[in-house]
Amino acid sequence: MSSSASALAHDIFYDTDLAEQELMSKKNDSEERVRNKAQEEEVSDVYPSRQYSLSRHFNRIDPVIYSDGRQKAPLDAALLDRYEKKGFLFLDDLFEDHEITDMQRHMQRLRDSDEIKQREESITEANSGDIRSVFDVHKLSDFFQKVAQDPRLVRIAEYLLGDKVYLHQTRLNYKPGFRGKEFYWHSDFETWHVEDGMPRMRALSVSITLTPNDHYNGPLLLIPGSHQTFISCVGETPENNYLSSLKRQDVGVPDQASLQSLIEQNGIEAAVGQPGRIILFDCNVLHGSNSNITSTPRSNLFFVYNALSNRVGQPFGSTAPRPEYIAARKSIKALKNSD
Amino acid sequence: MSSSASALAHDIFYDTDLAEQELMSKKNDSEERVRNKAQEEEVSDVYPSRQYSLSRHFNRIDPVIYSDGRQKAPLDAALLDRYEKKGFLFLDDLFEDHEITDMQRHMQRLRDSDEIKQREESITEANSGDIRSVFDVHKLSDFFQKVAQDPRLVRIAEYLLGDKVYLHQTRLNYKPGFRGKEFYWHSDFETWHVEDGMPRMRALSVSITLTPNDHYNGPLLLIPGSHQTFISCVGETPENNYLSSLKRQDVGVPDQASLQSLIEQNGIEAAVGQPGRIILFDCNVLHGSNSNITSTPRSNLFFVYNALSNRVGQPFGSTAPRPEYIAARKSIKALKNSD
Repeated sequence: MSSSASALAHDIFYDTDLAEQELMSKKNDSEERVRNKAQEEEVSDVYPSRQYSLSRHFNRIDPVIYSDGRQKAPLDAALLDRYEKKGFLFLDDLFEDHEITDMQRHMQRLRDSDEIKQREESITEANSGDIRSVFDVHKLSDFFQKVAQDPRLVRIAEYLLGDKVYLHQTRLNYKPGFRGKEFYWHSDFETWHVEDGMPRMRALSVSITLTPNDHYNGPLLLIPGSHQTFISCVGETPENNYLSSLKRQDVGVPDQASLQSLIEQNGIEAAVGQPGRIILFDCNVLHGSNSNITSTPRSNLFFVYNALSNRVGQPFGSTAPRPEYIAARKSIKALKNSD
Repeated sequence: MSSSASALAHDIFYDTDLAEQELMSKKNDSEERVRNKAQEEEVSDVYPSRQYSLSRHFNRIDPVIYSDGRQKAPLDAALLDRYEKKGFLFLDDLFEDHEITDMQRHMQRLRDSDEIKQREESITEANSGDIRSVFDVHKLSDFFQKVAQDPRLVRIAEYLLGDKVYLHQTRLNYKPGFRGKEFYWHSDFETWHVEDGMPRMRALSVSITLTPNDHYNGPLLLIPGSHQTFISCVGETPENNYLSSLKRQDVGVPDQASLQSLIEQNGIEAAVGQPGRIILFDCNVLHGSNSNITSTPRSNLFFVYNALSNRVGQPFGSTAPRPEYIAARKSIKALKNSD
């Protein structure tokens, strides 16, 4: 936990020793397969990126869903199939209306806080200076801490990742109306792997929409099926890349030919819907969003769950690890999966 | 006609004297009303903009449709009603498929031409240098000259504007895939009035889509009903504003409060559809578009028809008139309305 955030933070985690937790964690075929592979290839980088002068494609060698029939699934078989095939899923009824209203109220409170605006966890729009994201919301707010460890979310994450999970990153995203900027296509995993040292594709994101998302206000766009390919990006990472990449990503983005072929093959889906819709997506699915010239801001809450066995090590790229508030490195403890 | 373009230009116009043409033009009540008003207020600016430190709203004092029942209408009554109410109309069957295919081929030819790329009529993207627009396409290409004076288009324009019409501006717009930028809300008339000296709201645009337009590739967005209000914009016009405003418009854009209220009242409509769809829109309707991160470019052909009696004079703002290729000032001759 970064010292700057620790004053506001609470211990929301189990206190169990990490090694013990690993022993306790569910064993299944897919998990063992990954572990054996990881041992064989301890020092090798199975998903190399930003290392070649031309883009390269690698087939995903990791499962999308790590649990099998032996665990009780928190989602229908049809939903699981869809998640496996597309790399994402929309869930509309996980939270009650009053819970979403509470989240909206707390979001507004954070957004209006001058104290928050001045923290390093707050990322502002390149042109206007408006808040674009607030990182580490589970440490900055007791309320969002509780949402992030909600057993309904944790159980889904544990099932899909076949392991105990921890929070790799949390944030609130605000895309303001009128001058909200686009965010180019990217795989989160590519960045987490190269810049944070996340070894394998065994993480997922939960985005909870807190405003209506329609086709006009720059909704999240996803390329179904893109999670099955790792696109090795071209370009070197500058030091402190995160300071600009969180506003406009220039390195760690796929080349146009790869995007063109993936979009032609699979199309694009937009995460439009009413507030409270949850978008569950695999760490390697390509996503982005267009700008927002409408008067309607687009806001969402964003939690990244990573398998405990997949915790970050040294970055696979050559730059120093990103700050703790962007990628948890020290504060790694498993979340509870019951109330 | 600008000297740079005249080499490629042909006389596509009647050779009739302007005064004669005005005498010949249809007389009807609404037209006379406007003419009388214009005489009374000869020197006054009925749509002042970029003159006040706060935004102001003026009700439109000009008709939207200038012809009445005495002229044979080239469009159904229901379509005319919709145009009058919303300020725009989509027409899907005006051109044959093979005609659209021809337009696409000629568009590609212009876009690929190195000679065209280097002309002042070509506007490039702020970041990438890709062609964003080519102006004066009716002078740069015999083919587009013929499309712009197509009697099917001219008859509609004449009916709606109740007068002989001429081409105030023509262009091809290319919104490239991947990095196509947004274009902020604006009323064309506001700019044509302030920067070009167009006296009254008696002009319309015809946009012929040449690529599929969907919700993902930054389609034209319009605010229905916004053509009934003139929003006086805040800010002074810099000299040679067109050099930057054609890439990113910063002056001559409505304030956020006005936009918010208009959008809340009227909503937004997106001009999505297949190639060949025609978007007919009034000179004062607010429109814009979001960015385009998809792989699909968005291109359209764009003709502005102005009533002959509404030809431009001295700009109502303080800057020098824009170049001839952006706003016709010398080459003003009425178009034919029959083959």
